[in-house]
Amino acid sequence: MKRVYNFNPGPATLPLDVLKEVQAEFLDFDETGMSIVEISHRSQPYEKVHNQAKADILELMGLGDDYEVLFIQGGASLQFAMIPMNFATKDKKGSYALSGIFSSNAYKEAENLGVGKIAASTKDENFCRVPRQDELKIDADAAYFHICFNNTIYGTEYHYIPETGGVPLFADMSSNMLSRPVDFKKFSFIYAGVQKNLGPAGVVIVVAKKSLIEKSLETLPTMLRYDTFYKKNSLYNTPPAFSIYVVGKVARWIKNSGGLPVMAQRNFRKAKILYDVIDESDGFYKGHAHKDSRSLMNVTFRLPNEDLEKKFVAEAAENNINGVKGHRLVGGMRASIYNAMPIEGVEVLAEFMKKFQRKNKG
Amino acid sequence: MKRVYNFNPGPATLPLDVLKEVQAEFLDFDETGMSIVEISHRSQPYEKVHNQAKADILELMGLGDDYEVLFIQGGASLQFAMIPMNFATKDKKGSYALSGIFSSNAYKEAENLGVGKIAASTKDENFCRVPRQDELKIDADAAYFHICFNNTIYGTEYHYIPETGGVPLFADMSSNMLSRPVDFKKFSFIYAGVQKNLGPAGVVIVVAKKSLIEKSLETLPTMLRYDTFYKKNSLYNTPPAFSIYVVGKVARWIKNSGGLPVMAQRNFRKAKILYDVIDESDGFYKGHAHKDSRSLMNVTFRLPNEDLEKKFVAEAAENNINGVKGHRLVGGMRASIYNAMPIEGVEVLAEFMKKFQRKNKG
Repeated sequence: MKRVYNFNPGPATLPLDVLKEVQAEFLDFDETGMSIVEISHRSQPYEKVHNQAKADILELMGLGDDYEVLFIQGGASLQFAMIPMNFATKDKKGSYALSGIFSSNAYKEAENLGVGKIAASTKDENFCRVPRQDELKIDADAAYFHICFNNTIYGTEYHYIPETGGVPLFADMSSNMLSRPVDFKKFSFIYAGVQKNLGPAGVVIVVAKKSLIEKSLETLPTMLRYDTFYKKNSLYNTPPAFSIYVVGKVARWIKNSGGLPVMAQRNFRKAKILYDVIDESDGFYKGHAHKDSRSLMNVTFRLPNEDLEKKFVAEAAENNINGVKGHRLVGGMRASIYNAMPIEGVEVLAEFMKKFQRKNKG
Repeated sequence: MKRVYNFNPGPATLPLDVLKEVQAEFLDFDETGMSIVEISHRSQPYEKVHNQAKADILELMGLGDDYEVLFIQGGASLQFAMIPMNFATKDKKGSYALSGIFSSNAYKEAENLGVGKIAASTKDENFCRVPRQDELKIDADAAYFHICFNNTIYGTEYHYIPETGGVPLFADMSSNMLSRPVDFKKFSFIYAGVQKNLGPAGVVIVVAKKSLIEKSLETLPTMLRYDTFYKKNSLYNTPPAFSIYVVGKVARWIKNSGGLPVMAQRNFRKAKILYDVIDESDGFYKGHAHKDSRSLMNVTFRLPNEDLEKKFVAEAAENNINGVKGHRLVGGMRASIYNAMPIEGVEVLAEFMKKFQRKNKG
């Protein structure tokens, strides 16, 4: 079996042990005589998977019974619309910090509904950092304050939790969910498309205060109301069972590895290896993110010119390094090093970067 | 490996050959060195899967370039809302034939938006048949006329294609999509949650006339506009890649088996075996559906009393027959015999039914 180091931003590398487990039991799940993709979502074997995944996620986040985990389809992009539809009004708008494309898209959905307001933006600096606390202009009567906690495209991440003056804090954590301990209790509503750190594309995990989601506007379509998911344990209709099942295994893998403190330790170490190569390259590699906003998950950097960048991607592939081409909005390279990227993969990339620099520094 | 005969209504049994293929290549897809759940949706290996699945579905349906295949998350239940949001207005309402729970739910979403109207209903007969052509009251200026082509819960199916007098025909085909040749050209908009006949839960296939979906209302949220999916080849955001990948394999399996004519031949034969047992049981087994509305996919029947029904389910399980308990709204039994249910499974069930009757006819 061939296995590459997969630095794609999402879908992304998953723990090999989890993949092997999925493969081993794919034809006969839990002695049911059926595949996990064939069993009824109303059956006891499936409900066990579903409820265990929810419980493990809450436990990893250190959250209690006042929070609920929902599984919703449609990607974070559908959440961008559901959030203002459910929570904002023209009188109590949603307040948004723009720190990249996804936070801007989230704001656009609210704006399209006439219920969005910008609290801060670093667009003028090509989103090379997240807004600072002192830049946030959050209206006291805002329905919520929304941030994107890690910006996949730009390689930036919040290293502080914004103070909102009592306004409920909402966060898109699609690209750093469960990557390190965070005081999640400070958030009222967290959501994450799972395809970066947690599992196969097809489900968004919402972790929200029950008090927020237990009753939705009856004028909203059934599938756009959070209370539909809350009241029915995310089983109002057939859930994306396979994605939830793998997410459950990944959550278990995180727990068995030592939980978020151990993930953080590994992720800090991996990120440091790559940022050190950049910082010690005498300017050959230029990081896109400001140092105080550097993401532990997505390391973005440029090379001296585009020809070298193309050469870098091509030669990386020859060295079993896949998916390092950056997003067109930033250019250059991006190495996504989520929980499941092993330290060896990062070491291989770091060595390759140093060698590439030596050969090409002109 | 244990393998049961899985008569669940969905998620449901899938072709064993497809499951084995998925399992075999799960750690290394198409020599990428990555699992199908890890590869980028912007990569060439994934796009090949995505586009081939679309092409095979259109080919199986005998549709040409004036139709487009979309992959959308959220289940058929989200389509119930997206359809009226995209196509109906208070002046040009959506017209609905109610033939079961799902068609009624579809209507409710339109009604909630103030844009729905009932064209016919068989609710007074506990949905034991689909409405007849002569019962359909479709306004000439309706935006569309919506039917549920097969009613999973009640075990009924349309065996004719409604004449609509020029009103675009929309159909939920979640439970009989690709089960038999249909003159699909008579439909403007077809959709199907895949978890019954086509693959793992997590994606809805929409097959629609391009002219309908190429431009949507700009006031709608991005993820609720069909043109978002149309313009971006259903890759505006990360698609539910694993479900699409398996759907592609199932479509290929149907093609390699001889296409829809062969599926129909097998499905007619399987359904006849079970309906014959019912009809020849001297009233021990009572079919729920009227004969002219009988579904080829879901065979619903009751036993003389509830105690016998419980006994039937329990003894069936001992005979490797799983998932035959009916929906609470109909009671009794339901055997779902989608494309992937082998004839042997149906024969085993038929033999069990006959034996059960002999032992319990009192």
